Amino acid sequence: MGEQIRVAVLGAAGRMGATTVRAVQEAPDLELVAALDADADLARVAAAGAQVAIDFTVPSVTEGNVHALVDAGVHAVVGTTGWDEAALARVRDHLADRPGVGVLVAPNFALGAVLTMHFARQAARWFESVEVVELHHPEKVDAPSGTARHTAQGIAEARRAAGLGPVPDATTQSLDGARGADVDGVRVHAVRLRGLVAHEEVLLGNAGEQLTIRHDSFDRVSFMPGVLLGVRRVVGRPGLTVGLEHLLDLA
Amino acid sequence: MGEQIRVAVLGAAGRMGATTVRAVQEAPDLELVAALDADADLARVAAAGAQVAIDFTVPSVTEGNVHALVDAGVHAVVGTTGWDEAALARVRDHLADRPGVGVLVAPNFALGAVLTMHFARQAARWFESVEVVELHHPEKVDAPSGTARHTAQGIAEARRAAGLGPVPDATTQSLDGARGADVDGVRVHAVRLRGLVAHEEVLLGNAGEQLTIRHDSFDRVSFMPGVLLGVRRVVGRPGLTVGLEHLLDLA
Amino acid sequence: MGEQIRVAVLGAAGRMGATTVRAVQEAPDLELVAALDADADLARVAAAGAQVAIDFTVPSVTEGNVHALVDAGVHAVVGTTGWDEAALARVRDHLADRPGVGVLVAPNFALGAVLTMHFARQAARWFESVEVVELHHPEKVDAPSGTARHTAQGIAEARRAAGLGPVPDATTQSLDGARGADVDGVRVHAVRLRGLVAHEEVLLGNAGEQLTIRHDSFDRVSFMPGVLLGVRRVVGRPGLTVGLEHLLDLA
Amino acid sequence: MGEQIRVAVLGAAGRMGATTVRAVQEAPDLELVAALDADADLARVAAAGAQVAIDFTVPSVTEGNVHALVDAGVHAVVGTTGWDEAALARVRDHLADRPGVGVLVAPNFALGAVLTMHFARQAARWFESVEVVELHHPEKVDAPSGTARHTAQGIAEARRAAGLGPVPDATTQSLDGARGADVDGVRVHAVRLRGLVAHEEVLLGNAGEQLTIRHDSFDRVSFMPGVLLGVRRVVGRPGLTVGLEHLLDLA
Repeated sequence: MGEQIRVAVLGAAGRMGATTVRAVQEAPDLELVAALDADADLARVAAAGAQVAIDFTVPSVTEGNVHALVDAGVHAVVGTTGWDEAALARVRDHLADRPGVGVLVAPNFALGAVLTMHFARQAARWFESVEVVELHHPEKVDAPSGTARHTAQGIAEARRAAGLGPVPDATTQSLDGARGADVDGVRVHAVRLRGLVAHEEVLLGNAGEQLTIRHDSFDRVSFMPGVLLGVRRVVGRPGLTVGLEHLLDLA
Repeated sequence: MGEQIRVAVLGAAGRMGATTVRAVQEAPDLELVAALDADADLARVAAAGAQVAIDFTVPSVTEGNVHALVDAGVHAVVGTTGWDEAALARVRDHLADRPGVGVLVAPNFALGAVLTMHFARQAARWFESVEVVELHHPEKVDAPSGTARHTAQGIAEARRAAGLGPVPDATTQSLDGARGADVDGVRVHAVRLRGLVAHEEVLLGNAGEQLTIRHDSFDRVSFMPGVLLGVRRVVGRPGLTVGLEHLLDLA
Repeated sequence: MGEQIRVAVLGAAGRMGATTVRAVQEAPDLELVAALDADADLARVAAAGAQVAIDFTVPSVTEGNVHALVDAGVHAVVGTTGWDEAALARVRDHLADRPGVGVLVAPNFALGAVLTMHFARQAARWFESVEVVELHHPEKVDAPSGTARHTAQGIAEARRAAGLGPVPDATTQSLDGARGADVDGVRVHAVRLRGLVAHEEVLLGNAGEQLTIRHDSFDRVSFMPGVLLGVRRVVGRPGLTVGLEHLLDLA
Repeated sequence: MGEQIRVAVLGAAGRMGATTVRAVQEAPDLELVAALDADADLARVAAAGAQVAIDFTVPSVTEGNVHALVDAGVHAVVGTTGWDEAALARVRDHLADRPGVGVLVAPNFALGAVLTMHFARQAARWFESVEVVELHHPEKVDAPSGTARHTAQGIAEARRAAGLGPVPDATTQSLDGARGADVDGVRVHAVRLRGLVAHEEVLLGNAGEQLTIRHDSFDRVSFMPGVLLGVRRVVGRPGLTVGLEHLLDLA
């Protein structure tokens, strides 16, 4: 099967890494050639003949990993958190010198979550009102979730670009907190409920109609189609790509 | 048709009153004998031979109306807001002297809203987590709605009666308002969206399961089945009844 | 800890049995005294001093188990399927001779599912329209689910008891199957979707309003609060009880 | 206000036409110059100086209207149903001779409905499972709705283009109709409920996640933003445009 893509998984002992190892093993068009701990010697990736490395390690090592992979001519798919604009710029610069190599950094690999955010931005400019409700298990320490905050920011940006003003809201008497958190002018509500995992709803309203986009995430296996898609596409996509939405043919 | 119940409507020129007039006219078992403005002379109710009067007037006159109706031996169905415990007690006392007469005071005539509140109280003691989300049009001035507040208080009462402690919530970092308003320990979120009318959701969660009870109110015609039910039942139900739930055979 | 209830689990090697064993072990007011395979000698239950036995075995042995437990004076909580009216009548007769012993047979231990069915029956008589939508994973072989069928039958019964006629439906042109299955005059729709577990929605409609009751079951741990409630209540509830709803104080 | 667009409404006495007349009158950037019955003389449109005519007439006259408008150099926005491929081709040919004139024919002007269909097509290729549920008032005679059928066809097309096979479904025992109607391999369920207007849900599932896109249409005013958008855009968009989605900047 010469056409299989040879894949290494970095951070293979972690929860996401272990799930990824199984997903690569079960994909007929991929071959797992290395499964390494977060602190393993990266020379083993190239030695194993990997074409693509998937990084689910930790914020402290992920940037170093990516530069080492680029040097070795190995494409990278990165799901580790902690990347900021400066770090992304350094990778972009590095890739300018290695024209054949591709790197995908994605803050979220759940196709449904990425599509929700994309559709919310597309729809936002056509609706007078919009709010975000996210719902999670009660062990979560931050409210609202990073995803909901990011979604609200994208919505706010799309409204500004379209010249929309503030959403209508006649509230004059309110119990503290009833109207949710204000993220760039978009109200975000966080529900915490035993039994839930991670869920997000975008509610858009015009006179006489409502549009709702909802994503339910029940299990981390939901990230795997996105991770494998990243592996298959990154080999033909040189340079830096930030965000899975660029691979979803959303023209 | 001697078996028709003869009905007067007080406040017939208001929005609820006008809708009620039409509903009484269309009900084959009811006969409309009087449709009076909020400030009309109540002697006309008895003069018209009404057995039941429906009061959709204004807070300033409704209590006086009810006492006059009781004196005249006319049963009353009251949808006007503004009743407090003291006013209800005065009616209860008055009715003790008029054993054949019945009065129904109901803060909400939407069957679905009344059932939602009742089911929420019944379910509350069996779930570890519970929150309330209400959604209304953006012209509403108060948040959360009175109905949502009342629902949350009923839930809190049911949890206390069952000896349940606080709901689980590990939130330590929160944007202001993200977790909603705290009503007796129950989180209540208020969404405002163009296109909506009045909607309420009660979300209950246990490990591995969720129960959701949702009521959507699209139009004030939704109050009519409850109003007509009140008329039909109050003639056989002497004394004071507060709340439509007592007429719904919810054993 | 003399106040702990001593519990045996029958069918402890099965999926529900194993989950039950863990739940009993984690409950501070219960003590696990025996965990037996479906084909184990039942004499071991009494020998272990069990006060209550939980039966998650198989249809072919569950009735025999219950009669043996009743003979031994051990209360029984039964979640095994396959009980019909005749089998229940035999247990009822047997218990007439053993006045102190209680048996609970429950087709469903998920509190949310039992409440959904109960609320659907209570609400059904007050709404002109009603339909049921159930949603499950695509490996399920029957459609609609037994729970949805049972819910629809309960709704139909409540409508008949209230003298309601058929639901309104002006459909004259229909693609085959579009309007769902007809269960006693109530339309039931079955959705099959990868990622789902077991979900049920009851939709009720009147002019101007909608009431929705939805249950989501994500994991079999959701049965445990119901099972443990059964154990705690059956010791004080002699005779046969069929259905968890009788233990939920739904007055 | 020389920059106002001068607008004629054809079919102004119908329900959609009358709503459109009010919407044009209330829009500050539009000027209503003619409001004509479905059978009025079209020469009055040009005589009134209209730049754009909105056609909400009847299937028997709409095509003739459009050709007359094109001849007169008036742009057209058409919401009347009954257009087929042949009729559209005739308009396309005619417009080839009138390079400055634009015609927009849109089967649906509700922005939320158009976006739902567009998003459903975009998302379809990324999910293993998909079904459509539509919900309407019980006076509707056809099931499923034309919109739901159209949505399912778009989904089926997107799945085929992406090389996806049939959705997973292990059902072997089914009550007749339980699994809905089969539209090009996509299951479509039609709910009929008093109180509802027109609602559509697209449910997409992968292992561990669900994406839901829902549109609620409560009132025909929801078509107005789409109609007015069509008017504003058609003046700068020569040739034939079929479908509002082409004006929504959905890149």
